[in-house]
Amino acid sequence: MSTTSPIPGYAHDDPALAASPVTLDDLAKLQAGVLFGPDDQAALKIAGEVLGGQIEQILDVWYGFVGSHPHLLAYFSTPAGEPIGEYLARVRARFGRWIIDTCTRPYDQRWLAYQHEIALRHTREKKNHTDRADSVPDIPLRYLIAFIYPITATIRPFLAADGHDEDQVEAMFQAWFKAVTLQIALWSQPYAGPAW
Amino acid sequence: MSTTSPIPGYAHDDPALAASPVTLDDLAKLQAGVLFGPDDQAALKIAGEVLGGQIEQILDVWYGFVGSHPHLLAYFSTPAGEPIGEYLARVRARFGRWIIDTCTRPYDQRWLAYQHEIALRHTREKKNHTDRADSVPDIPLRYLIAFIYPITATIRPFLAADGHDEDQVEAMFQAWFKAVTLQIALWSQPYAGPAW
Repeated sequence: MSTTSPIPGYAHDDPALAASPVTLDDLAKLQAGVLFGPDDQAALKIAGEVLGGQIEQILDVWYGFVGSHPHLLAYFSTPAGEPIGEYLARVRARFGRWIIDTCTRPYDQRWLAYQHEIALRHTREKKNHTDRADSVPDIPLRYLIAFIYPITATIRPFLAADGHDEDQVEAMFQAWFKAVTLQIALWSQPYAGPAW
Repeated sequence: MSTTSPIPGYAHDDPALAASPVTLDDLAKLQAGVLFGPDDQAALKIAGEVLGGQIEQILDVWYGFVGSHPHLLAYFSTPAGEPIGEYLARVRARFGRWIIDTCTRPYDQRWLAYQHEIALRHTREKKNHTDRADSVPDIPLRYLIAFIYPITATIRPFLAADGHDEDQVEAMFQAWFKAVTLQIALWSQPYAGPAW
């Protein structure tokens, strides 16, 4: 996967992106809550290099997981239950870029703004809009939280594929686990409102 | 820790406990979402034996984590910021029992009912009530989700402490990770309402 070709609906660098309601102070506290620090940032940078050449294989695993569970595939399908190929493909391209961004982007205000946009794209407010998809109106919060497990557990063999030693793979894995948990916490914001 | 002494506010076996709005079918889909199966149940049973003798040490680690982060300790403190010793102690006893229950209880309708009660005890609806604590009114959802990381990552050395071989420790660890993620997904229910 090239990380430079334009990806439909990918808005990280869009200057028109609305600011997140999540502040940098909120983010710092959440990072402390998952023990995310500079060592994790460094480990993710290496992970980005390791994973960068394996994006399609990783997405094959994750899409295989979603595709084999009808109750998950439903969120990429019409209300009648027909999977929407173009919607799956467009999300897939952004999902691949998300892997790279998780590893390489600074977690700053711009990142928070796009995190919030991603969050909204799971909810009634914005799901389907970006891709003009004729799909169900939202993804229940519980499946976002549950997704922490497969998205984390399946990454380890890919992190190990470049022959880094066990300690380095472990450091990359822990950093990835923290980064995924952090992002799901951010994506829960529109679901919980004032109780977020 | 004895698992038979009465624990104030522990209501798993209380026949008056209200049913959960979460159905067994919801639970089965969530379990599939975290790849939780019979092998995990078996691994957790062994984990329960391994962790059972180390409950206080595990709680020392977790309470040390919370206690060292003022923004987390605040949820066990008065609105003015004074930690409430009795509240911390009463929650601690139930938290210890929660470790055992996570490993040994069948995930059935009764378990779902107490999961829902635990969920509510983090929210405005029920936080503080059980312990008549003069604390802040709720715990933000984001910190429940973030807690998946420390509660999972810190358990591995305790799982390894009984000398099981690496494959068995890994199986227990994965099962624990799944079970924690599953429960946080359940505890998010009152926060998200219809979007849960």
